[in-house]
Amino acid sequence: MNQLNASIITIGDELLIGQTIDTNSAFIAQEFNDVGIWVKRRVAVGDNFEDIWNALDEESGQSQIIIITGGLGPTADDITKPLLCKYFGAELVLNEEVLKHVEYLFHQVFRRPGPLLKRNIMQAEVPENCTVLHNALGTAPGMWFEKDNQKGEKTIFVSLPGVPHEMKGLITNEVIPRLLQEFTMPAIVHRTAFTAGMGESGVAEILQDFENNLPENVKLAYLPSYGMVKLRLTARGENKAEVEAVVSRYFDEMQSYLKDILVSNQDEPMEEIIGKLLKGKNKTLATAESCTGGYIAHLITTVPGSSQYFKGTVVAYSNEIKMKILDVSEQTLTEKGAVSEEIVQQMVKGTLDRLNTDYAVATSGIMGPDGGSIEKPVGTVWIAAGNKNKIITKKFHFRFDRQRNIQLSAINALNLLRIFILDN
Amino acid sequence: MNQLNASIITIGDELLIGQTIDTNSAFIAQEFNDVGIWVKRRVAVGDNFEDIWNALDEESGQSQIIIITGGLGPTADDITKPLLCKYFGAELVLNEEVLKHVEYLFHQVFRRPGPLLKRNIMQAEVPENCTVLHNALGTAPGMWFEKDNQKGEKTIFVSLPGVPHEMKGLITNEVIPRLLQEFTMPAIVHRTAFTAGMGESGVAEILQDFENNLPENVKLAYLPSYGMVKLRLTARGENKAEVEAVVSRYFDEMQSYLKDILVSNQDEPMEEIIGKLLKGKNKTLATAESCTGGYIAHLITTVPGSSQYFKGTVVAYSNEIKMKILDVSEQTLTEKGAVSEEIVQQMVKGTLDRLNTDYAVATSGIMGPDGGSIEKPVGTVWIAAGNKNKIITKKFHFRFDRQRNIQLSAINALNLLRIFILDN
Repeated sequence: MNQLNASIITIGDELLIGQTIDTNSAFIAQEFNDVGIWVKRRVAVGDNFEDIWNALDEESGQSQIIIITGGLGPTADDITKPLLCKYFGAELVLNEEVLKHVEYLFHQVFRRPGPLLKRNIMQAEVPENCTVLHNALGTAPGMWFEKDNQKGEKTIFVSLPGVPHEMKGLITNEVIPRLLQEFTMPAIVHRTAFTAGMGESGVAEILQDFENNLPENVKLAYLPSYGMVKLRLTARGENKAEVEAVVSRYFDEMQSYLKDILVSNQDEPMEEIIGKLLKGKNKTLATAESCTGGYIAHLITTVPGSSQYFKGTVVAYSNEIKMKILDVSEQTLTEKGAVSEEIVQQMVKGTLDRLNTDYAVATSGIMGPDGGSIEKPVGTVWIAAGNKNKIITKKFHFRFDRQRNIQLSAINALNLLRIFILDN
Repeated sequence: MNQLNASIITIGDELLIGQTIDTNSAFIAQEFNDVGIWVKRRVAVGDNFEDIWNALDEESGQSQIIIITGGLGPTADDITKPLLCKYFGAELVLNEEVLKHVEYLFHQVFRRPGPLLKRNIMQAEVPENCTVLHNALGTAPGMWFEKDNQKGEKTIFVSLPGVPHEMKGLITNEVIPRLLQEFTMPAIVHRTAFTAGMGESGVAEILQDFENNLPENVKLAYLPSYGMVKLRLTARGENKAEVEAVVSRYFDEMQSYLKDILVSNQDEPMEEIIGKLLKGKNKTLATAESCTGGYIAHLITTVPGSSQYFKGTVVAYSNEIKMKILDVSEQTLTEKGAVSEEIVQQMVKGTLDRLNTDYAVATSGIMGPDGGSIEKPVGTVWIAAGNKNKIITKKFHFRFDRQRNIQLSAINALNLLRIFILDN
């Protein structure tokens, strides 16, 4: 079977002056990889007619699928739609379905009174020869074109808005299902596990023999992210059932190497694992956060239905709040400092007591860039997790920037909490 | 003066399977823009000889400067250096200066005992006809090549390692100073403002006449993000002082159209604006979060030094916490429900009282996907901001997914707080 190649063209001057970091391409690449489409090239060009046109020509010589994102907003700097008309030899026509959706969004969702502006109505204009892809979350529809490339091979062009959540909805709900109908994909199966508490090179050391003995059609990818390492095993072949059997066998073998660093044999974030554990035990949780500043609570509450087990948080950024709301001792603060084992223990106790939950987790640390000292440099973090009977603690030393230190502290706090809940 | 164009080629399979988000290109683009080099195209290709070769050929037809990042690490799958030798018709030679630096790094910095490994010594091999650029932070040097493109025009090719901090050091300390010697740059000036409380098309409507009357060398770009719209004005010319004067004049004019939707005339996030306002007034803040689940606190505490004005948060996810920690009335909860104007007012009062701050902001809403009703559908959010003397409130209706509803609620809460602080 021939490899199915895609090119991603992102449009927008903001990408070329470095104002925007392109996260859309990574999302599309991940989703395409999952179904067996190889992203061969990614190209970013500015809001310039000739540059966009040339990119379309060039990529259609390289890939059977061309995804174009950006350049579809309602403002005047957008030139993509007229260009698509010219490129595909079509006139712009008003699409009644899209217009109804634009009206629905403006009147029912955005609650804007009065008639639509001309430029909003123009959002419903599409080249007559495209298939309109419904954008449930925004006014600019996706557009699907088919055209032969210069070698006479059929090529699919899909134009999508650049707003990330709109683009994501369209890729998942419209583009991938249609591509699966259009092309015969190889059988491709992924299984993902993830580990915590060990760096990428340590995990790679453990899995060295395993990886060297993998057959050619099975690949292992390391995806490190914030204190965890995702391990993705991918197999390709012609027959889905066979490919699944192969992956299952190697996935089981891989897990046996990982032992206690294994967090999950599914691709799910830490906050969902915590949620499942708590629901399974019918227990409740609260957090007490100093250095993480509410980020643990944010992660937990991104999970739908988290109000079943999550009661709340005290972000005790100042010592005054630590004492006043969490009953932390002034004497301990003076003697040991806010970043200490004793303080995070007291924060857990105070939270269990005041917020009346079964479990609590607490953090206190120095996130930088300022506030460090020789004994407690930037990146020093104490974490505690516990219940009424027992509290465990762990000290960490991170050495990154503020943003990354916050994220690492939160993930490691959730992991310590996970370990505690499993045992208690 | 002709426009000086650059292309950025990033190399690595990890970019094409979506494993890595390309932040290098954004950095290079920003630095180049600051000195007047226009990044015309960014291309990502995999670790594949033919794809890299074709990208070099294609980009050298488009730009006078080609920056290549990635593909220079010590592992075996790297093919960039042999390819560069072939592309520029050169042999690999061991560079003694680079070898000394690699030895220094291994022995003095990384503190590795024993002799260098072969693959580390190979890091010091470079094509004989390149100018070596010193990489103070890593073992792989930058390499500067000059070659005529297919039209016979001189083109600069610079190959840099993909590790972000090494690449950044090389761009700043080596590449840009050399390019400034090599080329006469145009003057280019950007000014950014941002607005809140109005969608992109509404802002564009307000600025329609302004935009239509801009001279050819001044451009306006709209960059919408989470309830805000960034407006970037860019001008180019020969003389820096003249260009700055032009931009300033139009930037002032633009601001006069924006009036009360203008949030800032600088490119800064909402949480930094709040921080500056509070520091300027020497006042303190706490938040009381139900539906935002700590996300407002997280945004505020990403700002270094926020402990100066931010004391803490109560995430009152359950009604029990709302009553127990924030003194919200059980009767009001029963009569009005948790998502109501009265409750967010009481949350602000309780926070000011219990956390003892000058200002407080509170949120309560239904983020979805479940929990909505006919009177209070998913996306209904009440926000209040106030001090001891006055509390203002606002009701919002979002209709997106959970993650986006949380982000929109947080940004709009910060904006309501900003407006309150300005007036009180």
